[in-house]
Amino acid sequence: MTERVVLAYSGGLDTSVAIGWIAEQTGAEVVACAIDVGQDGEDLDTIRKRALECGAVEAVVVDAKDEFADGYCLPALAANALYMDRYPLVSALSRPLIVKHLVEAAKEHGATVVAHGCTGKGNDQVRFEVGVGALAPDLKVLAPVRDFAWTREKAIAYAEDHDLPIDVSKKSPFSIDQNVWGRAVETGFLEDLWNAPTEEVYDYTQDPSTPRAADEVVLTFQAGRPVAIDGKPVTMLQAIQQLNERAGAQGVGRLDMVEDRLVGIKSREVYEAPGAIALITAHQELENVTVERDLARFKREVGKRWTELVYDGLWFSPLKRALDSFVESSQEHVTGDVRMTLHAGRAVVTGRRSPASLYDFNLATYDEGDAFDQSLARGFVELWGLPSKIAAKRDLGQS
Amino acid sequence: MTERVVLAYSGGLDTSVAIGWIAEQTGAEVVACAIDVGQDGEDLDTIRKRALECGAVEAVVVDAKDEFADGYCLPALAANALYMDRYPLVSALSRPLIVKHLVEAAKEHGATVVAHGCTGKGNDQVRFEVGVGALAPDLKVLAPVRDFAWTREKAIAYAEDHDLPIDVSKKSPFSIDQNVWGRAVETGFLEDLWNAPTEEVYDYTQDPSTPRAADEVVLTFQAGRPVAIDGKPVTMLQAIQQLNERAGAQGVGRLDMVEDRLVGIKSREVYEAPGAIALITAHQELENVTVERDLARFKREVGKRWTELVYDGLWFSPLKRALDSFVESSQEHVTGDVRMTLHAGRAVVTGRRSPASLYDFNLATYDEGDAFDQSLARGFVELWGLPSKIAAKRDLGQS
Amino acid sequence: MTERVVLAYSGGLDTSVAIGWIAEQTGAEVVACAIDVGQDGEDLDTIRKRALECGAVEAVVVDAKDEFADGYCLPALAANALYMDRYPLVSALSRPLIVKHLVEAAKEHGATVVAHGCTGKGNDQVRFEVGVGALAPDLKVLAPVRDFAWTREKAIAYAEDHDLPIDVSKKSPFSIDQNVWGRAVETGFLEDLWNAPTEEVYDYTQDPSTPRAADEVVLTFQAGRPVAIDGKPVTMLQAIQQLNERAGAQGVGRLDMVEDRLVGIKSREVYEAPGAIALITAHQELENVTVERDLARFKREVGKRWTELVYDGLWFSPLKRALDSFVESSQEHVTGDVRMTLHAGRAVVTGRRSPASLYDFNLATYDEGDAFDQSLARGFVELWGLPSKIAAKRDLGQS
Amino acid sequence: MTERVVLAYSGGLDTSVAIGWIAEQTGAEVVACAIDVGQDGEDLDTIRKRALECGAVEAVVVDAKDEFADGYCLPALAANALYMDRYPLVSALSRPLIVKHLVEAAKEHGATVVAHGCTGKGNDQVRFEVGVGALAPDLKVLAPVRDFAWTREKAIAYAEDHDLPIDVSKKSPFSIDQNVWGRAVETGFLEDLWNAPTEEVYDYTQDPSTPRAADEVVLTFQAGRPVAIDGKPVTMLQAIQQLNERAGAQGVGRLDMVEDRLVGIKSREVYEAPGAIALITAHQELENVTVERDLARFKREVGKRWTELVYDGLWFSPLKRALDSFVESSQEHVTGDVRMTLHAGRAVVTGRRSPASLYDFNLATYDEGDAFDQSLARGFVELWGLPSKIAAKRDLGQS
Repeated sequence: MTERVVLAYSGGLDTSVAIGWIAEQTGAEVVACAIDVGQDGEDLDTIRKRALECGAVEAVVVDAKDEFADGYCLPALAANALYMDRYPLVSALSRPLIVKHLVEAAKEHGATVVAHGCTGKGNDQVRFEVGVGALAPDLKVLAPVRDFAWTREKAIAYAEDHDLPIDVSKKSPFSIDQNVWGRAVETGFLEDLWNAPTEEVYDYTQDPSTPRAADEVVLTFQAGRPVAIDGKPVTMLQAIQQLNERAGAQGVGRLDMVEDRLVGIKSREVYEAPGAIALITAHQELENVTVERDLARFKREVGKRWTELVYDGLWFSPLKRALDSFVESSQEHVTGDVRMTLHAGRAVVTGRRSPASLYDFNLATYDEGDAFDQSLARGFVELWGLPSKIAAKRDLGQS
Repeated sequence: MTERVVLAYSGGLDTSVAIGWIAEQTGAEVVACAIDVGQDGEDLDTIRKRALECGAVEAVVVDAKDEFADGYCLPALAANALYMDRYPLVSALSRPLIVKHLVEAAKEHGATVVAHGCTGKGNDQVRFEVGVGALAPDLKVLAPVRDFAWTREKAIAYAEDHDLPIDVSKKSPFSIDQNVWGRAVETGFLEDLWNAPTEEVYDYTQDPSTPRAADEVVLTFQAGRPVAIDGKPVTMLQAIQQLNERAGAQGVGRLDMVEDRLVGIKSREVYEAPGAIALITAHQELENVTVERDLARFKREVGKRWTELVYDGLWFSPLKRALDSFVESSQEHVTGDVRMTLHAGRAVVTGRRSPASLYDFNLATYDEGDAFDQSLARGFVELWGLPSKIAAKRDLGQS
Repeated sequence: MTERVVLAYSGGLDTSVAIGWIAEQTGAEVVACAIDVGQDGEDLDTIRKRALECGAVEAVVVDAKDEFADGYCLPALAANALYMDRYPLVSALSRPLIVKHLVEAAKEHGATVVAHGCTGKGNDQVRFEVGVGALAPDLKVLAPVRDFAWTREKAIAYAEDHDLPIDVSKKSPFSIDQNVWGRAVETGFLEDLWNAPTEEVYDYTQDPSTPRAADEVVLTFQAGRPVAIDGKPVTMLQAIQQLNERAGAQGVGRLDMVEDRLVGIKSREVYEAPGAIALITAHQELENVTVERDLARFKREVGKRWTELVYDGLWFSPLKRALDSFVESSQEHVTGDVRMTLHAGRAVVTGRRSPASLYDFNLATYDEGDAFDQSLARGFVELWGLPSKIAAKRDLGQS
Repeated sequence: MTERVVLAYSGGLDTSVAIGWIAEQTGAEVVACAIDVGQDGEDLDTIRKRALECGAVEAVVVDAKDEFADGYCLPALAANALYMDRYPLVSALSRPLIVKHLVEAAKEHGATVVAHGCTGKGNDQVRFEVGVGALAPDLKVLAPVRDFAWTREKAIAYAEDHDLPIDVSKKSPFSIDQNVWGRAVETGFLEDLWNAPTEEVYDYTQDPSTPRAADEVVLTFQAGRPVAIDGKPVTMLQAIQQLNERAGAQGVGRLDMVEDRLVGIKSREVYEAPGAIALITAHQELENVTVERDLARFKREVGKRWTELVYDGLWFSPLKRALDSFVESSQEHVTGDVRMTLHAGRAVVTGRRSPASLYDFNLATYDEGDAFDQSLARGFVELWGLPSKIAAKRDLGQS
């Protein structure tokens, strides 16, 4: 029986060419698998047809936008996942979802190999291959761009020679990856760290410096999950999409940074993630109101580790699962409303209220009604500082 | 010999009244000690005279702005100190400096007691008393507002009875603390978490939503320290002051958050710290370029712990000193230029360059000249994912 | 209606006297509550009678040994809880269980106050009071020994005056607390840090230096829980008791250390915990075999934080619950057998086997059958070291 | 000019054969470099002669025992470095020292390549190659055993063919690495995890179960460094050697564990490190007496990270240097005496005294002279538990 390869298919030049190329080189049949995570390009039907025209024996297309929002973006929101304190893990989140569908397609279509089009110097190869290894350790992985040094020039030549239904002339000056959680742009003139991004780099966001009226929004969360916007119920996907629209229109969520890749190099990345940044901003502040201090302090460490793990391709690792248990537990009371102003590139919280609030007006106020017994403070302060004081006596005595 | 008390003196109603009150209650002589950390109020001479008129036997006034910038703000910048990922430790930084001067004044003037005007429900009492305990464990501490439940009403009555040179009618609706690193505002209508701050709350910053031209600035750092702005040499103090001015004019550095106090309650705080936020933003990005990945990851944890310690009043603790050693070591190569746009409430990095850069164009580029050996990646990915893969085999076998 | 106070009752001098004293001082009725956590003293019936004879209106006695083993010792085992890397949290574990029963008794018997006999310089007052606050924030707490400076001398005089049924002559030179998880000894000549403990200090363990034959034991775990010893099924309580016996007979589990108390002082403590140390030793090694590396590394940090929290009296805190979720998740595969030799003060693992093992002979062996593809290593090593190498190039170039 | 290769030379079969083999395969001249880190085998002169007889153009031999003790074992002691809470990093410590000498030899002898004899499934290849990359990024690395799949059989055949002065019949059933800090044994029947180690496995330690008299020792530390044993001054090397002797005679320091290798697999390892374990045990307890609580708690995390880094081959990394700064700062006051009993496999601290002690008898004692003000505790406990109490009120109200 002929061997089958499931190829992560984007509909673009590289992976369209890969269909025929893999078939030729390996003698295997290629099953193309395209996953819609909100990358906002062509419709799935067009992509399916192109795959078949390029020689795929099967073309699996999946609208996974809701699955992505609920199963991948929501945990990232719960963790306030910002790699290096800034980047909301746009690409790193979609890879494990794509891997899951590739593995399912491999099982369904009897494939023994999974193929992807990543290069050998990025993070995505790690996310694909480590993910496949963790879901289906017996599947083999093929990475032709990396392992056989495939180049764009070769791909164009192949497409023209074989008359593939691809427009090879279209070429962005940048390398772009996008999904509903955000958009990542790299290479081109951005590789010079001193160059500022220009407006053409952006697509999800308007120029924040253009004068316009501010937009006020009220987000409602239930146990860490956004459930309504301005009082109207939303799914997680709708929450992201609506905020991509509204926060994007105000220029919120642009990021420009030098980033530490897992493969050991630093790279310059530009992101835009209006919905993600607006949601994380609101979620963090609601946690400030509803999560106890020690839990909040340790959760910041857990969130940092969660984020690094996911960035580093270890979504399906045992540690990730255990961290998820911690984060889920922490979200139990993250319920309430956050009012935000979206304007000029910023999402600014201006109000918060919660039935699960730990803010106690009567303890906090300096006005009448103060319920805080200040006489307790003296003892607290004295014992809080006792270790430092004993050390000071020792140190002064010794010097 | 008459006992002497050194009082942390602000020149305001409460501490002016405290001079006479402490003398009356304890029979001690009061030495008033006022420290200028850039709080931008009256001049030191006026304050000195008032202290003496209120009955102090001595009035020590110190311009400590440079000392504050170099010894307290600079380490906070090195640590990227943002409590709860947001608040740049404005008040928490000035307290240990004030404590240091109080203790010195106590030694110089033969005092056995140090007094402060903090209440019993805030963080500052902890910072004062733990600090005094760590620098001079034999000094006693007097906290009349807390321990004797002194109120504003009693203070006004005392001032009027004794005809003290204080304008008792002046009363802000807010409780305010400020220094060159920032300004903290609390109480009043802000105690309702759903109320948005109004423009009257702010003083260091202009309304970010007012249309105005952007300001571009280039900051130069040497081993983590800002040494020039737009090419002109600056001291740390000048760097903060100039950026307070320029970033403040653009509305940069406003913060509105619910905060976890050390004494166990949550409070609503509004801050403005234009210079601090601009400097930290630039410093973080220069670290992204010049600090190795593993060091950068662990330094984020160290910075978080450093920040919590300082917030929690443990500036003079043994752990703080050891963390300082780590942070100092990490700053060795944080040298270079950062270009930022200040506009509409945001400080946005648009360029960075450094003689100590770890960004290697030839490794990062996808263009010609690529020096990254992609063939190495396959082995890396395989071994990186091996533990997850072995666990997957086990888990799949067991299920 | 007369107010009622639930008193944590041990049957000893101090708390027997407290019954009458509290009644006299407060006019309240006292409900004595004695919890058996395996402290191995008098039977519960004797204690109940004494409480009533001393004037209690009710005496609640509870055999909570199984509840303690399952609900408190087992989570500590899962966390490998060793405070300061050594002390298995003997007293810190029983306090929250006792608090839980005090609060239940208060509800059942209509009490509004809970009383305990702890002093003001130890950790246990914190564990009692913070625990009560977290389970029943409206209950008041009475701590007569601490708040009214009660002394042993006063207690003896009171007992003799009132002819209480207590033998006041019995006096250990040490302060002792014990339960099924271990035994804690302090004070007396141990307060001089240079004094070695003598044999009379110990009760759970024999002298490890006495020559005797070794004892070999096989422990079977299921998802982190000991379920059999030498093939015979055991409950958690039985596992601890049997190992207290067998490991104790070999002198295993003695500890002598200087410890950091929560209240800010250092104290000298001697512990013996033969069953706990034997179980933790075996459990750690079974984790080495069955828990993936990254999870194991982070779990050590989580276990450390869990242990500090519990030591610090925060058993019922939100952070503790979230850490429990993490730890539980980590135990899923901790299943298998560990063979140990108990001898001369040591519990030494000599063999381990598990259906959930991650040890793969074919990957690990250097013999024939080696399944590890060594050619992958070169790429791994190169990229693993790349950040250090790039930093080295920078550093060498700058120097 | 002929290229030169510096070979890490042990004097054994594999590296003796490598001299000729590398010369043949690459046409380069081989400089053999043997470093004495206390591996206790043949004398350096014999090794030098053998290298030359095997065809080396130069043979560099270095007695680096003191350098190893001072520069590598001492920092490990300061960090209480125990990988997975148990293994004192025996091999991981010597590798960076050897790398340093290889790199120096390469510079001195004009070599452009460094060669080592490690396989591709262990940690040592990483430590060698990452170390070389961090000290001399321009040197190339040759790993013939790994990259050319060299086997023992081929080596024996080569040695016999070329009549090399090596006894090829000698073959341990185990793979052994040793230095003054300890001895590591693996492979053979130990690869079955259920097999207990037999006495023949051990060399540094006597059988702990043999009855013998205990040995009491007093160690004196100055700022974390052992400076005297039983009152007689020692260098770090002498301290290790004397304790290897005395603790080894009592069977102290045997370890048997399953370990997580950096390359992603688990392996079974047996170690013996009598001196290291005795020193770390004493050092930890002296830290308990002299290091402030918060510093001690965080230092445990730093020590854990330090240990993982060094295990993972990152001795020369920027993070390692910053962690060293922290650890050094923490050792300032670790001065004093520790008395230990060495017996039957255990090193047990029985006394400690220090001029820098933070233990305050007058604060700790329950006897007369108690200086601890117990009235402070009430306020401390109340505020310590306040966050949990507020959370409890919220949770109870919501349920």
